[in-house]
Amino acid sequence: MTNNDQNNPSKTELSGLERRFYEIRNNKVFELFVIAIIIFSALMIGANSYEVSATTLQVLSVLDIAITVIFLAEIIIRFIGEPNKKRFFFNAWNVFDTFIVLVSLIPIEDSELAVLGRLVRIFRVLRMVSIIPELRILINSLIKALPQLGYVMLLMFIIFYIYAAIGTTFFAAINPTLWGDIAVSLLTLFRVMTFEDWTDVMYETMAVYPLSWSFYLTFIFFTAFAFLNMVIGIVVNVLEQERQLEADLESDKANQPSLVDLQQELAEIKALLQKK
Amino acid sequence: MTNNDQNNPSKTELSGLERRFYEIRNNKVFELFVIAIIIFSALMIGANSYEVSATTLQVLSVLDIAITVIFLAEIIIRFIGEPNKKRFFFNAWNVFDTFIVLVSLIPIEDSELAVLGRLVRIFRVLRMVSIIPELRILINSLIKALPQLGYVMLLMFIIFYIYAAIGTTFFAAINPTLWGDIAVSLLTLFRVMTFEDWTDVMYETMAVYPLSWSFYLTFIFFTAFAFLNMVIGIVVNVLEQERQLEADLESDKANQPSLVDLQQELAEIKALLQKK
Amino acid sequence: MTNNDQNNPSKTELSGLERRFYEIRNNKVFELFVIAIIIFSALMIGANSYEVSATTLQVLSVLDIAITVIFLAEIIIRFIGEPNKKRFFFNAWNVFDTFIVLVSLIPIEDSELAVLGRLVRIFRVLRMVSIIPELRILINSLIKALPQLGYVMLLMFIIFYIYAAIGTTFFAAINPTLWGDIAVSLLTLFRVMTFEDWTDVMYETMAVYPLSWSFYLTFIFFTAFAFLNMVIGIVVNVLEQERQLEADLESDKANQPSLVDLQQELAEIKALLQKK
Amino acid sequence: MTNNDQNNPSKTELSGLERRFYEIRNNKVFELFVIAIIIFSALMIGANSYEVSATTLQVLSVLDIAITVIFLAEIIIRFIGEPNKKRFFFNAWNVFDTFIVLVSLIPIEDSELAVLGRLVRIFRVLRMVSIIPELRILINSLIKALPQLGYVMLLMFIIFYIYAAIGTTFFAAINPTLWGDIAVSLLTLFRVMTFEDWTDVMYETMAVYPLSWSFYLTFIFFTAFAFLNMVIGIVVNVLEQERQLEADLESDKANQPSLVDLQQELAEIKALLQKK
Repeated sequence: MTNNDQNNPSKTELSGLERRFYEIRNNKVFELFVIAIIIFSALMIGANSYEVSATTLQVLSVLDIAITVIFLAEIIIRFIGEPNKKRFFFNAWNVFDTFIVLVSLIPIEDSELAVLGRLVRIFRVLRMVSIIPELRILINSLIKALPQLGYVMLLMFIIFYIYAAIGTTFFAAINPTLWGDIAVSLLTLFRVMTFEDWTDVMYETMAVYPLSWSFYLTFIFFTAFAFLNMVIGIVVNVLEQERQLEADLESDKANQPSLVDLQQELAEIKALLQKK
Repeated sequence: MTNNDQNNPSKTELSGLERRFYEIRNNKVFELFVIAIIIFSALMIGANSYEVSATTLQVLSVLDIAITVIFLAEIIIRFIGEPNKKRFFFNAWNVFDTFIVLVSLIPIEDSELAVLGRLVRIFRVLRMVSIIPELRILINSLIKALPQLGYVMLLMFIIFYIYAAIGTTFFAAINPTLWGDIAVSLLTLFRVMTFEDWTDVMYETMAVYPLSWSFYLTFIFFTAFAFLNMVIGIVVNVLEQERQLEADLESDKANQPSLVDLQQELAEIKALLQKK
Repeated sequence: MTNNDQNNPSKTELSGLERRFYEIRNNKVFELFVIAIIIFSALMIGANSYEVSATTLQVLSVLDIAITVIFLAEIIIRFIGEPNKKRFFFNAWNVFDTFIVLVSLIPIEDSELAVLGRLVRIFRVLRMVSIIPELRILINSLIKALPQLGYVMLLMFIIFYIYAAIGTTFFAAINPTLWGDIAVSLLTLFRVMTFEDWTDVMYETMAVYPLSWSFYLTFIFFTAFAFLNMVIGIVVNVLEQERQLEADLESDKANQPSLVDLQQELAEIKALLQKK
Repeated sequence: MTNNDQNNPSKTELSGLERRFYEIRNNKVFELFVIAIIIFSALMIGANSYEVSATTLQVLSVLDIAITVIFLAEIIIRFIGEPNKKRFFFNAWNVFDTFIVLVSLIPIEDSELAVLGRLVRIFRVLRMVSIIPELRILINSLIKALPQLGYVMLLMFIIFYIYAAIGTTFFAAINPTLWGDIAVSLLTLFRVMTFEDWTDVMYETMAVYPLSWSFYLTFIFFTAFAFLNMVIGIVVNVLEQERQLEADLESDKANQPSLVDLQQELAEIKALLQKK
């Protein structure tokens, strides 16, 4: 189940070089090689996090250049191998890949940019997603699910905002670190939602407002209930889609007569009988 | 999917002013303007939670009056624009909106009422729900789901109450803060249900009653099981409703013959044949 | 949806007294009165958990006797009103009710039995379940779901047991309170499963065995996965039952012809045609 | 529902001894006896975890030898009773059983191997799974579900790896115990995912990077969302399989005519009518 967004071009349309690169691009060995390089690049990031000797560091920096060059070569191959040059940059993954590789090319001497350089190297791991089609599909389906959750998220944010405003109004004097302004109150409420030491937060305010347990309990109920609803919403949606797919499949595979067809034929038979 | 609870009136029934206000009310730009004002009002609440200079405070209080006036104008427009004046107050959201706006009108000098004034301003954020139809539908569906959960909630409360009574009987002497009376015991059990430092509570009582772990474990099992049942209950219900909706839709769109119709026709054919 | 396990007897079978009591028993007002008494009894248990004056204590003990007498009267009414005396004790809820009331009758002077007396009074709240049919159905459905979970529970226990044995073998020397013997190890693992300060447990053992994180991570994966499977098992089962119920309902309401019936008729028509 | 992977051989194919052992192997009493021995062996492991007197220890070691001998005898009976000797070792459970029993046979005097000996004895509890068919089926279904989760697991690992790399880059200097290298960062992130004191981790880094809350919140959202997707994936899959099974069952039990059959017959009737 690969989403082949590039249609197979008739070979004659491409120049000799393009054809060869097109073949390389779709070669399974080439793909596995790129995946291996990405994994190796990820391991290098991991290795960098340990204290290493100066020699190893030098080896790593040479390897890093090698990886950058390979990635650059791969992008160029994919670009030249693309029959329709314009469409190459319509694909968000291609844009992402190109950006990551280009930023890796900038030489980093400056200590300020060093952090950016490291970050870009980290995000190279994400190239795994752009290479493996199954992961690309997974991410796409996650992104597709987001908008339908939009209104539940908005509702949840409204609940959070109201409780944060109330919390700040009453509890700011008790513990400014947790309830000082609306931003930290929102963070504190997120913590309460994850049940992370929420009783410590509650006992503190209950010492001043003995009834403040109701603040926390209603908040937990509302968010839990809204969250539940969101989850169920997704489940129902996914099941619906599956069922739809199945139904489409069935109606496709069938020249199977419908009840309407049968009724039609019965009518014809009756007509025949009555005519006689 | 807006629940238009006001039927489109024939224009002639309305006076000139009513007609114009009716059109304003259903105007998309008007709606977006009100939403913008609500968001601005929410941001102002947030800004209030930070320490601000006296000048800013004055600006904020002027803006607050402006918002109140706009909200008042909006309610009046919606009321005059309503073809059926009686039905306006049958809608709970309209009553809520009117209440919030009216309370905002009361001038707050008194420091005692100041808190109430701030609270009302906070709840103005909820007007978002009354304005955006999708959120209104979401809330309505949540409210509809509540009664069917009633008996599970009652059962859960009975479980809580029995465990709280047992806990108070045995553990009150060990830690009065957690088990002193039935109310704090209920709160402690809610904490145990959220797994919030529940082992601290348990180890304390196990020092006196070594078998008291069974109290906590059975409680966790019962509440988890009851909760699970509740969740599944909702899922099944929602799926049922979806299926029902789908089935209704299908039977609507179809003049498709049923098996009964076909049987009928076959009987007629047989009759024709036998008559001859 | 009351499960009327007593069939409506023809009035003549019952003596005058039985008939009157049978009518009382099925009277809605009588039921509501009993529910009110149960709620009052529950509130009394709650009140007892607070420190009360000697006078109130005396009032409470008088009220307790009154409640016991009312419950006794109710059981007697229900027993006499039962057309089939033998079947009364086949119902587990009746046995439970009778037991609770009989134990409440034993006068408690002894301080040792005092605790038992209080416990019985607490369990009187459970009579709520035996009185309200909806709760009875809920509990019955929970009990019915238990056996089908049996094998998953057994599997989960095997996982717990193996990990507890391994944990005791390696970690007993590190912290005897958490891993001293197989019983406390099981309790510690339950704590790890609820994510309750599980990192404290882990960091402690990682100080001695740096690779012991794998012990905790695999345990969490296995139990989470098994638990998930259990939940899904229930959901699928419940959905299956609902679908079955629906299907039964449909086939009940229908004299609707099946495809087999239609085929039969077609065969008859063909025979008629060929005969001619 | 036992998965009988051994086909019932015609009795004549087996020698007298084989036939007798085949009968023993399939005997219910023999199975229950083996289960009892496994449970007893599990209890012994538990008993070993408590401090016991020297006499008891000696009794336990004798009992251990007895259990090993019984298990050995059981494996031999099952092997001889197997009609197709080759297929015996194709079954992974048989291989597991044989391995466990053989390792138990090695006499352990050496203190180094003592731990291995104890571990093997612990894993004997797993023989429960190989003996009880229902548990075997459960485990097999769990294993079958694993590969379809593969890509979600991979995606989750990529998310973890990227966040761990970022965490190490920025937070290693703040707290080397939690973020020192990529390995401990991965463990810390797993801890954050389980909500285990995650705010302590967050507040510590927020003291240096005030915006680092966004690191934790996005991580929680991504992993929660990916996890949710995984769960839903399983649910949908299981439901699909159930539906498929049901559909297969229905089409099996039916000589029920399809709509195609009916259409065929109608065509024949029409032909008959037109011929005349």
